[in-house]
Amino acid sequence: MTLSVVNKQENNPDVLHNILIPFQKQISELEGTLLSLLDSEVPFVRSVAEYILKNGGKRLRPVLTVISAKMSGFSGIQAYKMGGCIEFIHTASLLHDDVVDNAKIRRGQTSVNAKWGNHVSVLVGDFFYSRASQLLTEQANLKILKVVTDCITALTEGEVLEIVTNSNHKTTREEYLTIIKNKTALLFSAACEVGGLLGGVSNNFQEALKEYGYHLGMAFQLADDVLDYTSSEEVFGKAMGVDLQEGKLTLPLITALGFASEAEALVIKNALLGKRLEHELFLEVKNIIKKYNGFELTFELARDHINKAKQSLTPFRDSIEKDILLTIADYVVTRNF
Amino acid sequence: MTLSVVNKQENNPDVLHNILIPFQKQISELEGTLLSLLDSEVPFVRSVAEYILKNGGKRLRPVLTVISAKMSGFSGIQAYKMGGCIEFIHTASLLHDDVVDNAKIRRGQTSVNAKWGNHVSVLVGDFFYSRASQLLTEQANLKILKVVTDCITALTEGEVLEIVTNSNHKTTREEYLTIIKNKTALLFSAACEVGGLLGGVSNNFQEALKEYGYHLGMAFQLADDVLDYTSSEEVFGKAMGVDLQEGKLTLPLITALGFASEAEALVIKNALLGKRLEHELFLEVKNIIKKYNGFELTFELARDHINKAKQSLTPFRDSIEKDILLTIADYVVTRNF
Repeated sequence: MTLSVVNKQENNPDVLHNILIPFQKQISELEGTLLSLLDSEVPFVRSVAEYILKNGGKRLRPVLTVISAKMSGFSGIQAYKMGGCIEFIHTASLLHDDVVDNAKIRRGQTSVNAKWGNHVSVLVGDFFYSRASQLLTEQANLKILKVVTDCITALTEGEVLEIVTNSNHKTTREEYLTIIKNKTALLFSAACEVGGLLGGVSNNFQEALKEYGYHLGMAFQLADDVLDYTSSEEVFGKAMGVDLQEGKLTLPLITALGFASEAEALVIKNALLGKRLEHELFLEVKNIIKKYNGFELTFELARDHINKAKQSLTPFRDSIEKDILLTIADYVVTRNF
Repeated sequence: MTLSVVNKQENNPDVLHNILIPFQKQISELEGTLLSLLDSEVPFVRSVAEYILKNGGKRLRPVLTVISAKMSGFSGIQAYKMGGCIEFIHTASLLHDDVVDNAKIRRGQTSVNAKWGNHVSVLVGDFFYSRASQLLTEQANLKILKVVTDCITALTEGEVLEIVTNSNHKTTREEYLTIIKNKTALLFSAACEVGGLLGGVSNNFQEALKEYGYHLGMAFQLADDVLDYTSSEEVFGKAMGVDLQEGKLTLPLITALGFASEAEALVIKNALLGKRLEHELFLEVKNIIKKYNGFELTFELARDHINKAKQSLTPFRDSIEKDILLTIADYVVTRNF
């Protein structure tokens, strides 16, 4: 599959929705549970929390928890709550990320920090983290607790590693892979593993879900990092070229830097270091990446991970749930948003 | 006791150190444990975490955990680790607070956000929170887990409530008391209760420690809010008048506003709303507070809480530990830093 295939694929942003039709009832229950978990003694907290939560988001992570749990023989409110816990951690990290990146837009809408200031973004992010901890405490499953808290620490460390390597054109492929593992893949992995733990499955099934989530998360982020350069703003929900503008080195760029001439490397360095990224400079960098197949090679790695993700599910017998997890895997590398 | 007594009391900042002499060995072990818990896969995280942790701080909260545990028949590394958990939560909240307040100084040194930027303060704060969660997970005591996670949620809600009421001269005494309960007293309370839970004491002792910590924390914050107006920068470790400058309404000011003439209320409003607080205006506000006994009345409430704190310990028989907790209670309202 080449990049062009990616962009010609299903353009409907509701593609995930369609995949999940068999789970529509559960997903609307999940949505209701998420909102019900936002109650706070401080009304303003609830308002901001609702604003960010209702502002879309694909709910991919909590859906993974609910489906993994179902495939592991568990359904019910606790699956929604643990899915909520995972979604809250994701939301908290977005809120803090927006402060770090000084982002103006999140999920196609004005970001919380742009609307109410950095301090609100920090504190409501903290609220989401603490609510996630409360949900874990209520669940009182020590294995789940360990998986999720280790994941939060890794997430934070990944974000710090990202700012430490910011704008450094010498960032290696290995550093980049560590960052996306910590920032994205481990939370996907935890989302799925928690589903298995709710079902009380034996080790090999638990491991299978953990692996599936990990590879899915890696592929998700790799695809995201390509889409940041190639997708349009309307479809992707955020401006194109944000990573480059923020000085973030992602694999398409790191790949190109490995082959680039001295003159081309200088163009990239300038784009990384400059305060403002002019559209022409962005296109120039994009062309250098294209020249050295930076997008294709990144997508190739994403597809490798997707194959491994699907492979991981081998121990499970066929079921609607397994089918959906396999379809989600394909979706992650074919979506264009 | 009048305010003048407060300022004439023991000027030595080592007064807490002296109180704790019988526990010197444990305190140095606690310090070692705190530092050993900062290990991170990302060296920069450890450096920043060490910077903020080594930058002083009285370690009052973890000391309360260690002493409460000892009084409840428990000693050993787990008490240091749970003390560390409490201190990390406190540190995380300071780091995020500094972003919220745009603070330049913390514990008498350049704040993390002023030194490395808001993003580092946010992320290293997250690291401290997540490390605290890991410690709780490792401890695997569901009662402790509940006490501490509820406390983190309250802490966050308290901080949001504080920014919601910021600069609003109509902030009530009740709103203020809710804020300091959530922001300060509940963490003191958790610090002590966790000590009891480690010792596996029965309900009445657990409740006693919880109450002691709560009243101690209330008194601590009330005293802090007086000292913000009355103590000198060198001794207090932060600039005088910070609360007023940040538009924070604390009890001395709220008390004065209850009695102030229209003209005086206008002076206070101007001070709260202005971008910069001139020293003369600060002194004018301070004089209005003095005129209506705002400092004395606040201290009176602090002393009430201290009496209740000491009263709470009645169920425990006499011991070195109980003696120290009683002395710490007095220290909280007589310290001048």
